[in-house]
Amino acid sequence: MESHFIQVIISVCVLLFAAKLLAEVFVRIKLPIVLGELVAGMIVGPFAIGSFLIFQGEHLVVLTSEVKTLGEIGAIVILFMAGLEMTPKEFIKGGKASLTVGTLGVIAPFFVGFFIFQIFGFDAFQAMLVATALTATSVAISVQVLSEFGKLKTPEARLIIGAAVIDDILAIAVLSVVTSIGGTNTGIDVTESIFTIFKVLAFFAAMAIAAVFLVPRMVNSKMWKASGSIEGIVTAAFFGTAGLAAWIGLSPILGSFVVGMALSTTKVFERVEQYIGKLGLIFAPLFFAIIGAQVDFRGINSEVMLIGIVIIGVAITTKLVGCGVPSLLFLKNKSQSRRVGIAMISRGEVGLIVAGIGLSSGVLLPNIYTTIVIMVAVTSLITPIWLKLEYRKDQKIIE
Amino acid sequence: MESHFIQVIISVCVLLFAAKLLAEVFVRIKLPIVLGELVAGMIVGPFAIGSFLIFQGEHLVVLTSEVKTLGEIGAIVILFMAGLEMTPKEFIKGGKASLTVGTLGVIAPFFVGFFIFQIFGFDAFQAMLVATALTATSVAISVQVLSEFGKLKTPEARLIIGAAVIDDILAIAVLSVVTSIGGTNTGIDVTESIFTIFKVLAFFAAMAIAAVFLVPRMVNSKMWKASGSIEGIVTAAFFGTAGLAAWIGLSPILGSFVVGMALSTTKVFERVEQYIGKLGLIFAPLFFAIIGAQVDFRGINSEVMLIGIVIIGVAITTKLVGCGVPSLLFLKNKSQSRRVGIAMISRGEVGLIVAGIGLSSGVLLPNIYTTIVIMVAVTSLITPIWLKLEYRKDQKIIE
Repeated sequence: MESHFIQVIISVCVLLFAAKLLAEVFVRIKLPIVLGELVAGMIVGPFAIGSFLIFQGEHLVVLTSEVKTLGEIGAIVILFMAGLEMTPKEFIKGGKASLTVGTLGVIAPFFVGFFIFQIFGFDAFQAMLVATALTATSVAISVQVLSEFGKLKTPEARLIIGAAVIDDILAIAVLSVVTSIGGTNTGIDVTESIFTIFKVLAFFAAMAIAAVFLVPRMVNSKMWKASGSIEGIVTAAFFGTAGLAAWIGLSPILGSFVVGMALSTTKVFERVEQYIGKLGLIFAPLFFAIIGAQVDFRGINSEVMLIGIVIIGVAITTKLVGCGVPSLLFLKNKSQSRRVGIAMISRGEVGLIVAGIGLSSGVLLPNIYTTIVIMVAVTSLITPIWLKLEYRKDQKIIE
Repeated sequence: MESHFIQVIISVCVLLFAAKLLAEVFVRIKLPIVLGELVAGMIVGPFAIGSFLIFQGEHLVVLTSEVKTLGEIGAIVILFMAGLEMTPKEFIKGGKASLTVGTLGVIAPFFVGFFIFQIFGFDAFQAMLVATALTATSVAISVQVLSEFGKLKTPEARLIIGAAVIDDILAIAVLSVVTSIGGTNTGIDVTESIFTIFKVLAFFAAMAIAAVFLVPRMVNSKMWKASGSIEGIVTAAFFGTAGLAAWIGLSPILGSFVVGMALSTTKVFERVEQYIGKLGLIFAPLFFAIIGAQVDFRGINSEVMLIGIVIIGVAITTKLVGCGVPSLLFLKNKSQSRRVGIAMISRGEVGLIVAGIGLSSGVLLPNIYTTIVIMVAVTSLITPIWLKLEYRKDQKIIE
């Protein structure tokens, strides 16, 4: 047996065990399970306790590409489950609201970030990169918290998911525009920027329409007689569509969300929901634990702390205001709108990807890179706690 | 998004889709599903149709280490499910029978193979390596077939699983003895060989006893309140034990089997069975499809065919006789004993590992390597068909 595979399964064992152990602790202190799993990853990860877990010269907790793949599959599974809970009709009905909230949720952090970081002495391109890192919400965390509280069917949850999908699409479009500027250094080509944004939107729409038409036909026919066929075909479908989305340049999770939505009104809905629910029992904790495990706090110093506080402040306020205020127009309810703003705060992969590009191209100093990573970590930790507090407030009013 | 991850999820999509499609075809022509999944892998694998599936210069079906890891997790899941169906008592009760059948099932192919290949002009060490490649049964295929036919609780199934466990342990012991001879070239050290065998057996026994005592305590306590905790902890446990088994040098599947067995008499049995059943719905087909996809028929020529027929002949007869005949002593039933012999025919990873070691050390010519791979493929294909025919014969007598 190759030692590589041994390390992978041992790492999964340690991460999963720690995640469920802290999930239990967090349930008791009435905090979201997701948060426990994130923190568990931070604790046993290779930059913390994991760095001491060495046996016969080999690290017991490693984040190899195989382990990360299992985590990324977790994100795909979580968004597939979220898609199952939303019919295409509901998604389209919420279209205008999602579009407005999602768009403002990208514009606000980008421009506020851009101007504030220029004031802080960053050059234009650096400021633009940091601002881009602030744009995209990491919806998996919010979705998991909403599902934990049984709030996935509420109007604010629908708006959060819809806006997060739009926001992800736009953030990727912004990313491609910004990095193309970096490459050519000839300023912004407005026509091309708009073209990029429309290209990404059109791709997503085409994929969504194709899924809604094709996937129910694929599974509703009488051709599947063997046990497990429906589940297998559905899984192949959402993996394939996730791959397609990733290939366009979107998050793969948008692909699996679309397939989930396409299945939400089919006869096999309950069967698929039961199946994927069980799958999610290990893939979701693995996803959160692996995200936590990637956080490296070793680069923190006083300068990083200072810039970090500014970036975190901008990250929180721009989403809270940028998404929360426009939500008021559609939800006509203050506490629901506030929840939309809060749920959009957590940042994820896109922020890290941008920071990584910035670092490797030499535009961002390692210090700025570290602060972006900290921003991602802090917003990921704040969102579940804050959402929890919001819902508890609501509970008390009802009682 | 890195293109590597895109390739992984697209590959999983294609493999899973093909596996379920052929599973449907095979159900209709009344052949085992497992066989359909194996053949599907052979068809869409990177050495067959997969080599033509190229998009923008990238292969759509690749067997990266991430894809193979998902397949290997499949084997772990299958054996965990088999373990759940057998209580430790039943395993111990069948101990003498398993030990006899398993031991003879290693001795027969090893010595018959060794002498026949020497007659065919192989030198002693070459003959020994080929003979070692013939020793270990790949129990995942047989277990899946038995489970498909609802025969996992029959006396012959218990004997098959028990003997396959022993056989795997002994085969690994033989492998370490043979490779150590190759390293030193000083002949066989009998004391050391026996010591190796006992070391491996003792490790397995210790792991099994620890699991049977610890795992039920870990999950039966009242400490797990959060949803999904039991499932997560159980999964962490069988991953960890599989890692431990692999680290000793055993197949990781023996570790997960032991944990399954430890859970077979606990209160959480049904909950765990339901959970792992759903997980198996995709991991099992992936395992078989990936095994199929690794078969490369391109090296076949007339010489390979000739040696291949001899090796396959030896592979089949030695297990059929070596396991089938001693089974008669314990089962006192001809058709049950024949099934034990048939179920033990399929060879798997150990054969491929030995062949790989032989090839990379230069002891085995590429031709011989190819014939061993073909032997593994053919025995994997024959076992489910033959078992099916045996059980159908039985059915007709009852009718």
